Amino acid sequence: MNGAKRWFFPDGYIPCGKRGYLASHESLCIMNVNKETAKIKIWFFFEDRDPLSHEVEVPPGRSLHLRLDKLGIPRCKPYSLMAESTTPVVMQLSRLDVGKEHHTLMTTIGYWEE
Amino acid sequence: MNGAKRWFFPDGYIPCGKRGYLASHESLCIMNVNKETAKIKIWFFFEDRDPLSHEVEVPPGRSLHLRLDKLGIPRCKPYSLMAESTTPVVMQLSRLDVGKEHHTLMTTIGYWEE
Amino acid sequence: MNGAKRWFFPDGYIPCGKRGYLASHESLCIMNVNKETAKIKIWFFFEDRDPLSHEVEVPPGRSLHLRLDKLGIPRCKPYSLMAESTTPVVMQLSRLDVGKEHHTLMTTIGYWEE
Amino acid sequence: MNGAKRWFFPDGYIPCGKRGYLASHESLCIMNVNKETAKIKIWFFFEDRDPLSHEVEVPPGRSLHLRLDKLGIPRCKPYSLMAESTTPVVMQLSRLDVGKEHHTLMTTIGYWEE
Ligand SMILES: [Mg+2]
Ligand SMILES: [Mg+2]
Ligand SMILES: [Mg+2]
Ligand SMILES: [Mg+2]
Repeated sequence: MNGAKRWFFPDGYIPCGKRGYLASHESLCIMNVNKETAKIKIWFFFEDRDPLSHEVEVPPGRSLHLRLDKLGIPRCKPYSLMAESTTPVVMQLSRLDVGKEHHTLMTTIGYWEE
Repeated sequence: MNGAKRWFFPDGYIPCGKRGYLASHESLCIMNVNKETAKIKIWFFFEDRDPLSHEVEVPPGRSLHLRLDKLGIPRCKPYSLMAESTTPVVMQLSRLDVGKEHHTLMTTIGYWEE
Repeated sequence: MNGAKRWFFPDGYIPCGKRGYLASHESLCIMNVNKETAKIKIWFFFEDRDPLSHEVEVPPGRSLHLRLDKLGIPRCKPYSLMAESTTPVVMQLSRLDVGKEHHTLMTTIGYWEE
Repeated sequence: MNGAKRWFFPDGYIPCGKRGYLASHESLCIMNVNKETAKIKIWFFFEDRDPLSHEVEVPPGRSLHLRLDKLGIPRCKPYSLMAESTTPVVMQLSRLDVGKEHHTLMTTIGYWEE
């Protein structure tokens, strides 16, 4: 199958800090090693308001590192992410947190379901 | 199912360091994308004493980033965490370790069971 | 079951750096939420020599954060770790890499099998 | 089985920074605890071009920490990685991102399939 159709990442957060030109951000990384384009709906869940959604596509045999800070999601606000794909894919979420005096990364593969 | 009912995180530790107003902490991030409120019991296991527990709820369609340093768990003491939910959820545990000269993050999705 | 009997961590490495009293290290964190003591054999696999092993126990209802730099494993040498337990447990491996000018953490839940 | 035959890592990226002699890099760590040599084909998927591949072997009872920055993959270019092995293995991907003023690690176990 080369993946799963649903992926979950509970710890989402786009930090507010920046250092020079580099802004803190998260990347939702998606790989589609199958022969069909993956059409993906991404849901953002919050602590205190209703979910938002966004759609992307990943062509066959391609990677996509989607910058989550460019989709209109508020910075400095905790959220969780669920993504639903028309075809099996694999997803990983990474965060870069930078500021005047720090620069740190964290990452995890997601929780998956068919 | 959109998740699992039991989640496990063996590496729990609330570091003692702080930098200015920012204190080291851990966040247990929980997402509930289903239609029922998730009632969750969190167990803290230690190396040298009996477990402690704490209860939270996550409403349907919501995220919760639970600060573990505000629950009365001792700082600087290794522990492990298990969480049991009445309905399927997904969990991720992240740690921020800061001090006068450092600021670092780490994260992982949990181990899950039904 | 509250866990699995076998856990695998391919990226093992005890860095050589230290900062003051703090030495780089890895912690293999094990949680046993069941009612029997977990007897665990840990195997270290190397790139260029035969495996080494070490045994630990984790009592029922307890956590153990095992410092891997205190077991006689050489520093600065890549390895992989497999752990076999008599009863189901959950494991996570974390690394602290420190030096004069850096202090960084990384972690992952392991790969598991029955 | 002591592993799985296919492993997936969506967030691949070899950063451009270096500090002194230390260059940013990624390590694909592979462990083979079985009795047969694992013959592994690694596929690199990109956002804007066709995949590349590379082959390695891991002998029985051995670890391999494969430096991905020494295989001809371009630096500073997002990618995703899939590895297919003739026999079950376990894989973890770690990134070291260094620069004049930063040094940070991140890691995750992969997504696996038979
Ligand atoms: Mg990490
Ligand atoms: Mg990190
Ligand atoms: Mg990390
Ligand atoms: Mg991680």
